Amino acid sequence: MAEAVETMEGWFSLHDLRSIDWPKWKRTSNKVRQEAIEEFIELIAKWEEVETQKKGSHVLCKALGHKADLMFMFLRPTVEQLSDIETKIEKSKLGDFLIRKHSYLSVVELGKHRAPKDVDLRTSPRIRERLYPILPKWDYMSFYPMNRKREAHANWFTLEQSERSKLLYEHSLTGRKYMEKVRQVTTGSIGLDLWEWAITLFSNDALQVKKIVYEMRFDEASSRFGEFGDFYIGIRMTEEGLKEYLAVSK
Amino acid sequence: MAEAVETMEGWFSLHDLRSIDWPKWKRTSNKVRQEAIEEFIELIAKWEEVETQKKGSHVLCKALGHKADLMFMFLRPTVEQLSDIETKIEKSKLGDFLIRKHSYLSVVELGKHRAPKDVDLRTSPRIRERLYPILPKWDYMSFYPMNRKREAHANWFTLEQSERSKLLYEHSLTGRKYMEKVRQVTTGSIGLDLWEWAITLFSNDALQVKKIVYEMRFDEASSRFGEFGDFYIGIRMTEEGLKEYLAVSK
Amino acid sequence: MAEAVETMEGWFSLHDLRSIDWPKWKRTSNKVRQEAIEEFIELIAKWEEVETQKKGSHVLCKALGHKADLMFMFLRPTVEQLSDIETKIEKSKLGDFLIRKHSYLSVVELGKHRAPKDVDLRTSPRIRERLYPILPKWDYMSFYPMNRKREAHANWFTLEQSERSKLLYEHSLTGRKYMEKVRQVTTGSIGLDLWEWAITLFSNDALQVKKIVYEMRFDEASSRFGEFGDFYIGIRMTEEGLKEYLAVSK
Amino acid sequence: MAEAVETMEGWFSLHDLRSIDWPKWKRTSNKVRQEAIEEFIELIAKWEEVETQKKGSHVLCKALGHKADLMFMFLRPTVEQLSDIETKIEKSKLGDFLIRKHSYLSVVELGKHRAPKDVDLRTSPRIRERLYPILPKWDYMSFYPMNRKREAHANWFTLEQSERSKLLYEHSLTGRKYMEKVRQVTTGSIGLDLWEWAITLFSNDALQVKKIVYEMRFDEASSRFGEFGDFYIGIRMTEEGLKEYLAVSK
Amino acid sequence: MAEAVETMEGWFSLHDLRSIDWPKWKRTSNKVRQEAIEEFIELIAKWEEVETQKKGSHVLCKALGHKADLMFMFLRPTVEQLSDIETKIEKSKLGDFLIRKHSYLSVVELGKHRAPKDVDLRTSPRIRERLYPILPKWDYMSFYPMNRKREAHANWFTLEQSERSKLLYEHSLTGRKYMEKVRQVTTGSIGLDLWEWAITLFSNDALQVKKIVYEMRFDEASSRFGEFGDFYIGIRMTEEGLKEYLAVSK
Repeated sequence: MAEAVETMEGWFSLHDLRSIDWPKWKRTSNKVRQEAIEEFIELIAKWEEVETQKKGSHVLCKALGHKADLMFMFLRPTVEQLSDIETKIEKSKLGDFLIRKHSYLSVVELGKHRAPKDVDLRTSPRIRERLYPILPKWDYMSFYPMNRKREAHANWFTLEQSERSKLLYEHSLTGRKYMEKVRQVTTGSIGLDLWEWAITLFSNDALQVKKIVYEMRFDEASSRFGEFGDFYIGIRMTEEGLKEYLAVSK
Repeated sequence: MAEAVETMEGWFSLHDLRSIDWPKWKRTSNKVRQEAIEEFIELIAKWEEVETQKKGSHVLCKALGHKADLMFMFLRPTVEQLSDIETKIEKSKLGDFLIRKHSYLSVVELGKHRAPKDVDLRTSPRIRERLYPILPKWDYMSFYPMNRKREAHANWFTLEQSERSKLLYEHSLTGRKYMEKVRQVTTGSIGLDLWEWAITLFSNDALQVKKIVYEMRFDEASSRFGEFGDFYIGIRMTEEGLKEYLAVSK
Repeated sequence: MAEAVETMEGWFSLHDLRSIDWPKWKRTSNKVRQEAIEEFIELIAKWEEVETQKKGSHVLCKALGHKADLMFMFLRPTVEQLSDIETKIEKSKLGDFLIRKHSYLSVVELGKHRAPKDVDLRTSPRIRERLYPILPKWDYMSFYPMNRKREAHANWFTLEQSERSKLLYEHSLTGRKYMEKVRQVTTGSIGLDLWEWAITLFSNDALQVKKIVYEMRFDEASSRFGEFGDFYIGIRMTEEGLKEYLAVSK
Repeated sequence: MAEAVETMEGWFSLHDLRSIDWPKWKRTSNKVRQEAIEEFIELIAKWEEVETQKKGSHVLCKALGHKADLMFMFLRPTVEQLSDIETKIEKSKLGDFLIRKHSYLSVVELGKHRAPKDVDLRTSPRIRERLYPILPKWDYMSFYPMNRKREAHANWFTLEQSERSKLLYEHSLTGRKYMEKVRQVTTGSIGLDLWEWAITLFSNDALQVKKIVYEMRFDEASSRFGEFGDFYIGIRMTEEGLKEYLAVSK
Repeated sequence: MAEAVETMEGWFSLHDLRSIDWPKWKRTSNKVRQEAIEEFIELIAKWEEVETQKKGSHVLCKALGHKADLMFMFLRPTVEQLSDIETKIEKSKLGDFLIRKHSYLSVVELGKHRAPKDVDLRTSPRIRERLYPILPKWDYMSFYPMNRKREAHANWFTLEQSERSKLLYEHSLTGRKYMEKVRQVTTGSIGLDLWEWAITLFSNDALQVKKIVYEMRFDEASSRFGEFGDFYIGIRMTEEGLKEYLAVSK
């Protein structure tokens, strides 16, 4: 029987995608819209305060396509805090104009399969930075969940641990080639949500998101073992950007 | 032909997931909201009375993500009682603000594949506790349905009974490692709902839910034979928690 | 090329599942509700008249879970009569408060694969009872559609007829063990609806529905060749039960 | 590399399935209903004029089950004409009470795989009748799309042309057995819609639809290579039938 | 390990499919309809200005079937510009009557697998025309996304690069046969959207769309390795055509 690789987990993660009910938003009064925006900006300010204190992190994007209009990613130490964020959004004035489209719960995960043996991983600053990451404020965020196959000819979970380590190491070399251009956060979601892992990519060049995932698809870890679902991509939005986005000219 | 393992069944089980129509809930009057909450708290009180009398059990959670807002699990001796609970919720005042998202019908199941031979299982207190369990009031509940594969290379239902027993035994050893941290209720749903079984996990540490399912995925019973769908996770909610959750500040 | 087994067909069958729009139903006036119920009870009375005359049969259930609230099964000599029933429900006052969730069209089917050779099947009372069955008024009804696989390693439709007959015979033996507890109506739907066959089970013990389908899953006809979708289960509802179900306390 | 069989195409085809919003239809005034019906009957009259002139053909059915209430099939020389029909329905008064449920675009297709060599297919009256068919006004219409498998053990598109011809010929023999009872129109939809082909069957006996598809499933072309989705069946509706269907008693 | 073929990317692409809420559109006042149309025509005029300046391209079609009523394809240098177009549509007056049905994000892609070695691809006018194409204003546009299989017997991503090049070259020969009749734009979407590539075909003869995709399905690149989803086809619509389409006779 293949052995599970020990993993380390950091902050819990929630991807939260919502669409704006534009006809309803446009129909409402200027006053309500103004209040809704102001209140939401305050909410964002509180999330930023959390990030400043390194007690969590978040990114807000304008999503592309029909899948959603807004795409959030939140990192927090507990699922309670993530759940509380959801409730805050629902109860906010803006929440009345948002339609939930998708969400994804996971937890920042590091495999120990190639961990250095002479380091105390729990206290290593380099490890802690990866378990409790401040999400890069880069222009684009792409998010996709994935599984490893459990088929007759390609069963990740019956592979020897050494084989899995080797494949993941090769896979990481492709990632390293893009290190300057693309940052990656891997979160695990077995037992938490529909897929086994979720990958979130950040870049200042939207094309590099395509380039890295394309190149990685030829790595054996993906070509033989990867199962992919949908991909969600968004453009980072500042508070000013959000205000502009929600502005309705009369 | 492989032989079916004899099973013992206990209480019927209903998982019931509902979303709150927040805009409608916020729009309604304070009075209606107050009445709806009070009436629902009374409903919960009746369910608790049932549990006190050991005639059933239930848990109420705040679900994470877009899948639902509220997640209930009910255990009752008959499907009529479960159906009646559904109707009570529909007819309640709060019911007007709830949207059904999902449900799952099953029945608590114990396989006899490794049953001790010198015990009368029907009267054994240890067995009865497992067939008619009072659900743990732990902080987190995770629920997922599953099948066993019936494919060319991996057909659970054509395996010899001894082989199935062996694989399930190995699988149970992984479960035992988490005994202090995670409790599990297995329910069968062949003939009752979409999947063959449903697993409900309880823990006081959300991370342990991920840890146990991750580790179990390497057991042959899962790696070769398991088929998984969606996972639903929630945070247990007390009456006070429910009131707070439903409170709308003006 | 494998040969098709000749089949005999009896009444056409429609499973019809609908949810109640409870908020709308509760919002409407007592008078409208009363009229809607009375009119619907009259409709049921006409269906019962048809059954009394042995020109068809039907069962009305309260369905479990989010899939539907009401589950009907109708048997009639023609699809026109089934279509007319659908229209009658749509046009009824209660119809304004019902939401269509699912339906299934099929026809009562008997395979001749083990038919006695010295009997005129068309006139045999035993056969006629099975082709034109009065549905048992037992407490529970479970309905599920199914296919036989057409895969590389398990292709039902390329098996020799004798092999198929053998597998179905074995399968029927499992059914016979439950004869006192579970009655089964098999309907064919190739060319009529999404799946190839539909199975409808009746029992006075909900647990036996689970027991029989579980045990049958180990029969080779299921373990190797069966493909299953969703299962729908309901509790039979009398007119009085329907009135009570639809009653709204003020 | 296997070679594509040359095909001949005739009229474009649109299957159009819509449900009636019964509560809305019943709520509206008698006057609006009357106007809507009259206008729609005029629309049908124009389609009949087209058919009389042999510039197209159509059938209107009352569909069975929850999939739709009305099922149209239209044949026209151009996709523009089909698109125009859709728009006419949307803009009609009745259109306000119809909900689009499904549609399918394809084109009448004849394979030349067994075409006689001494006939000019483009002018042959027998061929022209099949490419530009006036749809039979028989009592039942059944429609289903299908693919041919491209799997390891059964790849239609890598079979030698002679092998495909042989399998299709065998398949056609089963069809011929039903010639008096069931007429078939095959339309191709590769590049046009979700599946590769669509089959539309007409019969005066609903049971024969089941019988032919059942028997054909044992043909190797289906048992090894066929992939099937949903089946849609309806009862042909005359103008009088439509009026009666839409009539609302007060 | 197979090596990824280097690719060149040009403009980003957005397919945007929307349905018209006809009952709402018909219900609104003539004045609102007129304003909405005029404003939208202005929007189109701006897009045309972009195309005149060769800073992007677009096509507007009337889609066939229930999938959508309007189908846009936009090409722009940045995803920001595509996102801005989406927002402009949402905020437009017409936007209040449109329902988002589907969308697809990708980027114009050219594989270098058979690139001439003595040409500077970045400056070659022929290459630049293909990376930054002005979309043909032909009568029909067909769009479909696709994957290459990663199965045991057919794994595109573990094939040697030379083998992939050979298969794609053969595939391109089929395309060339249709050069006069069908133009093709290939866009890559790995990391950007649900599928790996999207193909958009343009033709003045709707039948040729079917003919080319049918014939290509026999190419090994498709027959063994292609995975296809839905196909969307539309008829190009001029401003006059749009006005006529949206006109409501009273």
